[in-house]
Amino acid sequence: MVSRYFPILGWAPSYNRDTFAADAIAAVIVTIMLIPQSLAYALLAGLPPEVGLYASIAPLVIYAIFGTSMTLAVGPVAVASLMTASAIGELVAKGTPEYLGAAIVLALISGLVLVAMGLARLGFLANFLSHPVISGFITASALIIAVGQLKHILGIDVSGHNLVEQVASLVGGLSGTNLATLAIGGGAAAFLFWARRALAPLLARAGLSPSLAASLSKAAPVVAVVATTLAVYLLGLQSAGVAIVGDVPRGLPTPALPTFDAELWGTLFLPALMIGIVGYVETISVAQTLAAKRRERIDPDQELVALGAANIGSAMSGGFPVTGGFSRSIVNFDAGARTPAAGAFTAVGIALATVFLTPALFFLPKATLAATIIVAVLSLVDLETIRRTWTYSKSDFAAMLGTILGTLALGVEIGIAIGVLASLALHLKRTSRPHFAIVGRVPGTEHYRNINRHAVDTTPGVLSIRVDESLYFPNARFLEDTINDAVSLDPDVRDVVLMCSAINFIDASALESLEQIDHRLKDAGIRLHLSEVKGPVLDRLQRSDFLERLSGRVFLSQYEADEALKSGPAMAAE
Amino acid sequence: MVSRYFPILGWAPSYNRDTFAADAIAAVIVTIMLIPQSLAYALLAGLPPEVGLYASIAPLVIYAIFGTSMTLAVGPVAVASLMTASAIGELVAKGTPEYLGAAIVLALISGLVLVAMGLARLGFLANFLSHPVISGFITASALIIAVGQLKHILGIDVSGHNLVEQVASLVGGLSGTNLATLAIGGGAAAFLFWARRALAPLLARAGLSPSLAASLSKAAPVVAVVATTLAVYLLGLQSAGVAIVGDVPRGLPTPALPTFDAELWGTLFLPALMIGIVGYVETISVAQTLAAKRRERIDPDQELVALGAANIGSAMSGGFPVTGGFSRSIVNFDAGARTPAAGAFTAVGIALATVFLTPALFFLPKATLAATIIVAVLSLVDLETIRRTWTYSKSDFAAMLGTILGTLALGVEIGIAIGVLASLALHLKRTSRPHFAIVGRVPGTEHYRNINRHAVDTTPGVLSIRVDESLYFPNARFLEDTINDAVSLDPDVRDVVLMCSAINFIDASALESLEQIDHRLKDAGIRLHLSEVKGPVLDRLQRSDFLERLSGRVFLSQYEADEALKSGPAMAAE
Repeated sequence: MVSRYFPILGWAPSYNRDTFAADAIAAVIVTIMLIPQSLAYALLAGLPPEVGLYASIAPLVIYAIFGTSMTLAVGPVAVASLMTASAIGELVAKGTPEYLGAAIVLALISGLVLVAMGLARLGFLANFLSHPVISGFITASALIIAVGQLKHILGIDVSGHNLVEQVASLVGGLSGTNLATLAIGGGAAAFLFWARRALAPLLARAGLSPSLAASLSKAAPVVAVVATTLAVYLLGLQSAGVAIVGDVPRGLPTPALPTFDAELWGTLFLPALMIGIVGYVETISVAQTLAAKRRERIDPDQELVALGAANIGSAMSGGFPVTGGFSRSIVNFDAGARTPAAGAFTAVGIALATVFLTPALFFLPKATLAATIIVAVLSLVDLETIRRTWTYSKSDFAAMLGTILGTLALGVEIGIAIGVLASLALHLKRTSRPHFAIVGRVPGTEHYRNINRHAVDTTPGVLSIRVDESLYFPNARFLEDTINDAVSLDPDVRDVVLMCSAINFIDASALESLEQIDHRLKDAGIRLHLSEVKGPVLDRLQRSDFLERLSGRVFLSQYEADEALKSGPAMAAE
Repeated sequence: MVSRYFPILGWAPSYNRDTFAADAIAAVIVTIMLIPQSLAYALLAGLPPEVGLYASIAPLVIYAIFGTSMTLAVGPVAVASLMTASAIGELVAKGTPEYLGAAIVLALISGLVLVAMGLARLGFLANFLSHPVISGFITASALIIAVGQLKHILGIDVSGHNLVEQVASLVGGLSGTNLATLAIGGGAAAFLFWARRALAPLLARAGLSPSLAASLSKAAPVVAVVATTLAVYLLGLQSAGVAIVGDVPRGLPTPALPTFDAELWGTLFLPALMIGIVGYVETISVAQTLAAKRRERIDPDQELVALGAANIGSAMSGGFPVTGGFSRSIVNFDAGARTPAAGAFTAVGIALATVFLTPALFFLPKATLAATIIVAVLSLVDLETIRRTWTYSKSDFAAMLGTILGTLALGVEIGIAIGVLASLALHLKRTSRPHFAIVGRVPGTEHYRNINRHAVDTTPGVLSIRVDESLYFPNARFLEDTINDAVSLDPDVRDVVLMCSAINFIDASALESLEQIDHRLKDAGIRLHLSEVKGPVLDRLQRSDFLERLSGRVFLSQYEADEALKSGPAMAAE
C-alpha cells in the first residue's frame, strides 16, 4: 500500500477550510517560538545561526508528507545539537566550512540510517534504550548544555573537554566577566525563568483562555530577543564587549548534495546512528503522548521513515540533524493544530523570516540565545524521575546513574553506551538467579501460592516448586542446584512438581538441565512432574523426547497435579 | 572456613589403605593414557613435546589440594591447546623460546583470572556460554584440529590462516605425500579408530570385566606409540622422511617465574580469559557429570580456584594452559579412583616417565601423535546434538551455527564471541515480542487458559490478558500496543484484567507503560485490574504510587477477579 509510506494521502483528501484555519493559527504561534530556538540551537551545535533556520524549513515540509503524528513538530533540538557538537568538535575546527560540512553529513547519514531502519521495520530496536537510561541521558545532557552556555552569559572564554574541566575554567575566569554581557544575559535568563512560571497565569488572569495563555507564554523568548536586540542597538553595547550575532546571510538555502568522503563518513557513522536513535526515541515518545490524548494512532516504523526523510531533507538544504521537539509539539498541539499541514505552514513562516528578518538579527546578543538555551534545557533536568526510579528499583537506578555519570564524565556517546550495556547486564544478572517458591494450596480454592507468604496447605510427600523465570542458559545450572537443594531438605519427598506458570520458554540449555534433573531424581526414587505448562512451551517440548522419558506426568493445572498425587504413588502412576 | 578453600582437608584425614589401593590402580591406568596425549597436545599447541609432560605434573598435584571433584583429571587438552596455538601463533614465531614463554604467560594469566573469579564467586558467568554455543565451539574446534593434523600424517607442509585456505593448501600438496609417513600415520589412525570401537568388546569377550576392558582399551594410543616407534627404529624410516620427535630433554622442569612484559600480558589477556573460561566450562561439566553418578557435590566457585591454581602451577613449572579432560576423567572414574590423590599419583607417574622414558621417545613418529589427536578430537564432533538442537529450537540452532561458522572461518576467539553475543541477542529478541493470550475459564475449574487453545468460558465485558513475559524495557512498548489492539477489537469491554502469573518482574520502563495504559483505558471508560501478581512483584509495585492510582483492583487469583467482575461494574466497584 502506497498510503502506508505516504500518510499524507490519508488526511489530505479531507482537508478543508476549518482544518486550514486551525493549522494556520498553530503555525503562526509555533513559528514565533521556533525562530529564537533555531538560532540558539545552531549556536549550541557550533554552527552559524542561519543553519538553525535552514534546518527548520525543509524537514518540516517533508515530515508533513511522511509523518503519522498529526501534531509533532520537528526541527533542531537541544540534545541532538549537543551530540552534533560533540561528534564533530574534535574532528574539525569550529567556524570552518569543513565543520558545517561535517554537520550536514551527520544529518544525511542519520537520515539514511533511520529510513533504512524504518523500511526494515526495526523500530523495536529503540526499545533497548530504557526509560531510566533516556531520562538519565537527557538530564546529564541538559547539565552539560547549561554549563556550556554560561560562558556566553558571562562573556568569558572557557576551555576543557569534560564538565569538571569546564567548570574549573569557568570559575577561574569569573574575574574576567563582561558586565554588559552579564546584564543582558542575566536579565534575559531571569525574565525567561519568570515567564516560564508566572506569565501564563498572568495572561489567564488578564482574560485569555488558559490554553492560549500557555501558548503565548512560550513566545517569551521572542520578547527577550527583541528587547535585548534593541538594548544593544540603542546603547551601542557591542562596543562594551557584548558579543552579537552579526551578519546573517539573507535568503533561502540552495539545495545541494553533501560531498562523499569515505573516511569522514566512516568516522561519523556511529555518532550519526546514535543521534538518529536518540532523536527517534524522543520523537516517538512525544508523538505517542500527543496521539493518545486524541485517540489517534501513530506507526512507529513509519515514524522512522519520516524522521529519516526529514534529516535527509535537512542535509540537502544545508541544515543539521533534526528531531521531534517536545515543547514545540506541545505548543503546536495546544494551539490547535489538526494535521501535519501545520508543520508545512510553520516552514513557510520560517522561510519568510529567513528572507526578511535576518538583517534585524544583526544586533541580537549571543547572551540572549544562551539564556534561551539554559532556561529550555534546565526544564529537562528531571530530578523527580531520578527519585522515583531510586525508590522503585535499585537496578534501574544503577543503569540511570551509570548513564548520567558516564555522560558527564566521558561524553554523550560513551554515556549512552554505558546505559544500554548496564541495563542489559543488570537484566541478565536478574534472570540468572530467578526467584522461586515452594507453593501450597490456598484453602478452599484451586489456587497455589508461596508457602512463606500465604497460609496454604501442602500434600505430604509432594514438593511443588514454582520457578519465576523462563528457563534459559544463564539460569540453567541454577535450576539444577535449586531443585537439588529443595529435595535434600525433605527426605520424605517422592514427587516433585515443577509449576511452570511463570516459565515462558525453555531453551536447549535448560532442556538439558531438566533432563539431568529428571535423571538424578529418578536415581533417588523421586518422580518429576510438570504442571501448568504453557501451550507454546509444551509444543516445543514435544519436539524433543524429554516428555517420553520424563519419570512423571504433565498436569494441566497445579490443582490437578496435587489431587492426583495426594492419593499416593500407586494411584498416581499412569 | 579454611577447608572451603582447601577441600583436601575434608578427605585426607580419612585416607586409608583401601582408598590408596583404588587410587593407585587408577593412577597407573591414567598415566599410561596420559603420556602420548601430553606429547600430542604439546605438538598441537606448537610446543616442544616435553612441555606436555611438564603440564601433566604440577597441575595434577595442585588440583588434588584445591579441587572438589573426587575424580576429575586435569592436564593439557585438545581445545585449550588449539586456543593456545591460535593466541600466540600470530604473535611470535613457532619453535622460539619466546613462543614457549608466551604459552607459559598464557597459562599464568589464565590461572590468575580463574582464581580471582573463584574468590569473587563469579562462577555463574560461565553460564553465559550456553550448551549449544559450547557444543558448536567444540565441534568446530575439533574439525580445525583434525584438518590441522592431516599434514603430519601425510608428511607435507601446509599453509593458510583459516580452514578453507588450509584445506586448499592440503589438497594442492597431496602429490608430495610422504608414503612412509602416510603408512605410519594412516596405520596408527586406522588402528586407533578400530580400537575405539572394537577393542573393549574384544577384551570383554576375553574375560575382562566390562569397566576394566573399557579402561584398558583407552591405552590403545600407547600400543600405537610403541609399535610405530619400534617400526621407525628398526626400519630406519627417519631417513625415508618420517618426521620424528627427536631429542627430548630428560629430567624434571625447574620451577621459574615467567617474565613480566606489560605489552605481551596486555595482548594475551583476552585470549587467556577465553581459554580459562572455556576450560572451566569443560571442567565443570565433566566434574558435575561424574559427581552426580556417585551423589557427590562439587563447588563451582572452588573449582575456579582449583583450576586457576593448577594453571598457575603449570606456568611456574614451564607448562601451558591445562583443563579438566573429559576422557581421562572418565577413565580415572571407571578405573576406580576414590579421591583426588589419584591425580597426585598420576603426577608421580608422569614425573617418572619424564625422567626415565624420554630417551625412548627419540624415534617416536610425529604422525602417530597426529593420529592420536585426530581420533581423539573426532569423537568431540557432535552431530547428534546439532540435529537435536535444530529440531528443538531454531534460535538455539542459529547461535550454534553462528559459533561453528565463526570459529571455522574467523578463528576460535571470534567464534565463541559470536556465539555468546548471538545467544544474548536472540534472547532479547524473543523477550521483546513476548507471547500473550486472551484467557478464559476451563469449565468446572478455577483454571484459566488461552481461548484459542482450550474450550473455555469468558465473561462478557471482561477482557483477560495473560502476557507470558516479565515486563521490562525491550517489551514495554509492545505491551502498550498489545493491550490497545486487544481492547479496540471488542467495543463492549469495560474491564481489562492483566493476568500476571507469568510476570516475574516489572522494571521502571514497564511501570511507566502500565501507567500509560491505565491512563488511556481510564479515558475510554475502561478499568484496568491485575490478577495473580507474584509477591516480589507486588512488593515492588507498592513502592510506587501505581496501585493507588490504578483504576481497577488487584485480585489474588484470576478466578476471584472473574467472579467479582461477572456481577457488573456496580458490584465490582470497591
